[in-house]
Formats: sequence, structure tokens, C-alpha cells
Amino acid sequence: MSKKVILSGDRPTGPLHIGHYLGTLKSRVEMQHDYETFIMVADAQAITDNVGDIAKVRNNIFEVVCDYLAVGIDPKISHIFIQSCLPQLPELTMYFLNVVSIQRIGHNPTVKSEMKTRGYTDSVPAGFYLYPIYQVADIVAFGTHVVPVGNDQVPMIELARDVVRNFNEQFNKEVLVLPEVYQPKIGARLPGVDGNKMSKSQGNAIYLSDENDEIIKKIKKMKSDPNRKSLEDPGDPSEAVAFSYLEAFHPDPRRVEELKEHYQRGGMPDKVLKEETAQVLIAFIEPIRERRKEFSSQPDLVYEIIRKGTMAAEAKAAKTLAAVKEAMGINYPFIKPHVLQ
Amino acid sequence: MSKKVILSGDRPTGPLHIGHYLGTLKSRVEMQHDYETFIMVADAQAITDNVGDIAKVRNNIFEVVCDYLAVGIDPKISHIFIQSCLPQLPELTMYFLNVVSIQRIGHNPTVKSEMKTRGYTDSVPAGFYLYPIYQVADIVAFGTHVVPVGNDQVPMIELARDVVRNFNEQFNKEVLVLPEVYQPKIGARLPGVDGNKMSKSQGNAIYLSDENDEIIKKIKKMKSDPNRKSLEDPGDPSEAVAFSYLEAFHPDPRRVEELKEHYQRGGMPDKVLKEETAQVLIAFIEPIRERRKEFSSQPDLVYEIIRKGTMAAEAKAAKTLAAVKEAMGINYPFIKPHVLQ
Repeated sequence: MSKKVILSGDRPTGPLHIGHYLGTLKSRVEMQHDYETFIMVADAQAITDNVGDIAKVRNNIFEVVCDYLAVGIDPKISHIFIQSCLPQLPELTMYFLNVVSIQRIGHNPTVKSEMKTRGYTDSVPAGFYLYPIYQVADIVAFGTHVVPVGNDQVPMIELARDVVRNFNEQFNKEVLVLPEVYQPKIGARLPGVDGNKMSKSQGNAIYLSDENDEIIKKIKKMKSDPNRKSLEDPGDPSEAVAFSYLEAFHPDPRRVEELKEHYQRGGMPDKVLKEETAQVLIAFIEPIRERRKEFSSQPDLVYEIIRKGTMAAEAKAAKTLAAVKEAMGINYPFIKPHVLQ
Repeated sequence: MSKKVILSGDRPTGPLHIGHYLGTLKSRVEMQHDYETFIMVADAQAITDNVGDIAKVRNNIFEVVCDYLAVGIDPKISHIFIQSCLPQLPELTMYFLNVVSIQRIGHNPTVKSEMKTRGYTDSVPAGFYLYPIYQVADIVAFGTHVVPVGNDQVPMIELARDVVRNFNEQFNKEVLVLPEVYQPKIGARLPGVDGNKMSKSQGNAIYLSDENDEIIKKIKKMKSDPNRKSLEDPGDPSEAVAFSYLEAFHPDPRRVEELKEHYQRGGMPDKVLKEETAQVLIAFIEPIRERRKEFSSQPDLVYEIIRKGTMAAEAKAAKTLAAVKEAMGINYPFIKPHVLQ
């Protein structure tokens, strides 16, 4: 029996950080052995709210792929591909627009809040407004069974499920695969060093490509319990970002418990806590960063990986598109699918 | 200097009628010598409000192309192509969505009234709501200078002009051609035999494929001045549909004036008027219908014409798409445009 298909991906707007690792990369690396894995570098989607800085999107494709390879995505079994290189995706989108209402596409709490964040009120770029339906095509094109997502992405998968159900019902055929949400068990989301959401744009992220001195510098600025006046005072571990990082990356959970108890008792200098956190993060990031350097020093190798992954993804998407056109009855036998070929 | 480009087309939802001839086909035949002519069979657009009857759309592609050839569209100089066979069109649409707001797309009085006609109120199929922006890609893909349209289509061209201006400005390059509206001088629009708008769906149309007895039957039911009680009464020519047809198709305008005066004076039997109208229409339609039969009896020839036209159209659209991607900076040199080729 053939493996089930898993699709994941990232918008190439910056290199990836330890939050990405914990949230998605780790589980992708684990799951690639059990699933046929497609990993999409979502450049076309990134453009929908970066039309004024497409160079950033373009330049980060390479960076993101180096991150993938460095953490252990294996290009022999996983297909890493570039979204905009697959003409099948917008073509599928065009057909899916016929089985969903414009109101349904607009009904998405995540997108609505993203629109507010970006100050899109009276005038929303159409590409941004419609990206959920383009995302449906991304998912469906590969016959995806499983999409690993955070809570905020669940409405996207719901839209994809609606489209699949509507399409199969409209054309009375099980053409498209109904995708399932998969929510990796990742515990609490890793905060940035300042305690807020870790984000490329907030400057509070620790990257998989950070040098040791950058890691140390960032950890030094890390938020501790702000209510502690002197180091003799007891501290609240849930107020100190260090503990989130230690819980996520320390190889010895008992040691983390000890540190926590000490912090709660009082007498633990923040400096000591941060030094241990820096050590733990350096031990985690250093080998990734070094593998990353090996890949990024061989761009031809990386591009060949992208090219092969994109070919595999295009072959799969072309198959889905052919099935969609056949189900709709617009596979004209008198015209080849790509007349120029 | 290369010729300017003209784009026109039809939704393949039924064979074409004498209203189409007068409104657009006649001027296409005349203009094909002076312009590089692309004629699009808009199947993907027709699907947006015929998703429940795609077989109708599919089957009428052949019929519409036979109509084109029969009226004198010359496949040696004009490119007749099928919209859904060009993956570049939805791909261009995806990029154009980034330089226009969703509000701007929705602001179109023609589409709003079409939505009412179709009973789309709370729930509008997204494909139908968005077809104006897909139409922009249709126009822009061929570097179109001139689009011949009726009054109701002018807002579509305005949207295309906005997108072209926005795109060229955003990327600081004259990448796309600004299309112009061309409104052929066609006098008043030809009514259906019942006096209402001539329309496939109203059953009041005279087709270019109608046999003589069908023409006679339809003309017999033609609307005359309803206020005339007896044939001795004076009649109002503007109330008799026959005069619209005679003015459009009678080879001798003086004869039409004579008939009009007689009708106004009184004493002109409707039967006589209709018989002359039938004669005039038969003389016009018969040679078209016979050429049409010749073509439709040679499907391989017709399909070869479609295939060649579609190839030419795809080559042009691929060039525009490449220019668009280059201007945006997403023409990745490390990946060929079509990786599978």
C-alpha cells in the first residue's frame, strides 16, 4: 500500500528559528519516514503581503531550504519544492472557485485578524484576501491526507475539506482526497526572548543559523521574572523565558526541575540560569548551523535538490489537475494538455 | 512595424446567432486583416455560471468555432483558441490579484446586475464573482491593444486598465500593454423575434446554423405593431421587429425605406412584410450555413485549426507570463519555467 501524503511548508520571508523547529520542523523530520512528504516553499503566498519587497521573498528561498536540510529533512525521501514553479496550483484554484462561494472564502477568523494586523481595512489586496482558496489548491494538488498545522490554521483546512466535499459531490466522483488536520504535540508555543510571540518581524527570534555569540547576546537580553528585586528573592519560573527554552531543549528534564525549584526558592542568579540556557541552545544549534553552512556553501547541490523536488511535486499536481479536468469533462481529447509540449 | 493586437471571444454556451454576427463577428472579419487577431472560446468563463451543465459548454466549443469559420474568420491569419487550454491565464490572474483590491474587483455594475439576474444574492459562486479579474488576464496575456466590446463590457476594460497601470507602476517597468476599448458602430442592438433582447436562453434567436424552414417559422412568430387592428391601419415601424432585421441585412436601403413608408401609411399586410424579411435573412444565412456544414462535416480539420490557434495563443501568453515573472523578480534561473519539460 502506498504511503499517505503529508504537506507542510513555510513562507520564505526570513530564515527559520527555533520556534519553527519545535512547532513543525521536528515533526516533519520524524514523519518523513512514514509519509510521502511534500514541503512547499510558499513564495507566491508570501508575495500576497510582500508585493513591495519581493526580493526578500526570492532571497529567502535558498535560506529556508538550507534550514530544512540542516535539521534533517532528507531530500531522498522528501520533496522540497517552490510553489510558484507549479502552474497547476493557480489552475486548480480557478476550478475550485466554482464550487465555493466568495462569502465562504471571506469567512475565516484567522485571515480577518491578519487583515487587521496589516491595516487592510477598506482596501484589501485581492491576493491576500483570496490566499485561503489558493492554499486549498496547494493542499489538494498532492492528494494530501494530512496537514500538520497550529490552531490558527484549522479554518484553512476546514475550507479545503468543504471544497473537496463540494467538488466530489458536484461531479459525483471521489476525485479529490479529503485532508485531515494533524496537530503535532508541541506543548506550549515557544516565546521569543522578550516573552512575546517569536517572530521574524519582532527581532526576538533565535535562528537555526545564529552563531554562538549571537545566541549568547540574545539570551542575555532574555526576559526574567520582572517582579524579582534581588537574586535572593524567590522567582516565578513561568515569568522567565529561560524555562520555556530549557524545557524544550535540555536533554535532562530532571536538571530542569532542579533549576526551577532553585528559582522558586530564591538565590538563583539570572546570570547563571541564562548561561545554562545559552549552553543548551548552543549544543542544540551548533551542529544544525554547521550542517547548514555545508549546504549553503554548495548552492548547486541545494538548487539540484529544489529542482528535483519541484519536478516530483509538479508530476503529482499534474496528475490531480488531469483528474479534475476529466471529472469536469473539460479534458479535450483533441488538444493535448500542454499544447506546446 | 508589427500589427496591433485585438482580442475578442465568446462563451460557448450555444451556437451563434445573427445578433452576434452584427454585434461582433462582422467587425472581427473586417478587422482581422489589420490586426493580429486572437479569438477566445471562453469555456472556463462559461463554467463559472454553468457548473451544473459543463457538457453544454464542452459541446458548444465545436459549434462556435464552426460559426467563426463560416462567417469568414480566416484561420490562416486569426488565432482561434480555447481558454482552458492556457495554464498561463490563471497563473497571470494570481499575480494580478496582488496589484488590485478585492473591493475594486467587486465594484462592477454589469457583474452586480448579472448576479441579480442569476439569483446570486447571499451566496455568489466565487468563480462568477471573480471572473472580471480572470478576464483581465485574458486581455493582458496577448499584449492586447484593442478589445471590441458593447457598452456593458466597458467596466471590464476599465478594470484591465487599472491592473495594467498598477502593475507597471509597482514594478516600475512598461511590462504590460494598456488595452483600449473599441466600440464597433453597429447601430441599435438587434432584438429577438419577440422584440426582447436576442438571447440563447430566451428562444428568440435566429442562428447562423438555422435551416430555411426554421427561419421562416421564427419570422412568422415575429412581433409586429401590436396596436394595429386591421391591415388598413397605419403601423409604427419601430414596433415591428421586421424593420430592425431589414435595416441590418437588406442589401437595398431604399427598398427598406419604401416598405417603412407603406407600413406607416397603412395597407401593408404583416404577412408580406414578414415574407420579404424571411427572404432577406435566408439570402444572408444560407451561404453561411452551407459553409458551416462543410466545416462541421470535417471535425479533424476544425480541431486542427483549434489546435494551431491554441498553440499560437499559448506562445504569446507564455511570453507575457515570463515578462511578468521577470518584472516581479520571480524568474528563478535555477529552475526552468516548466520543470517537467
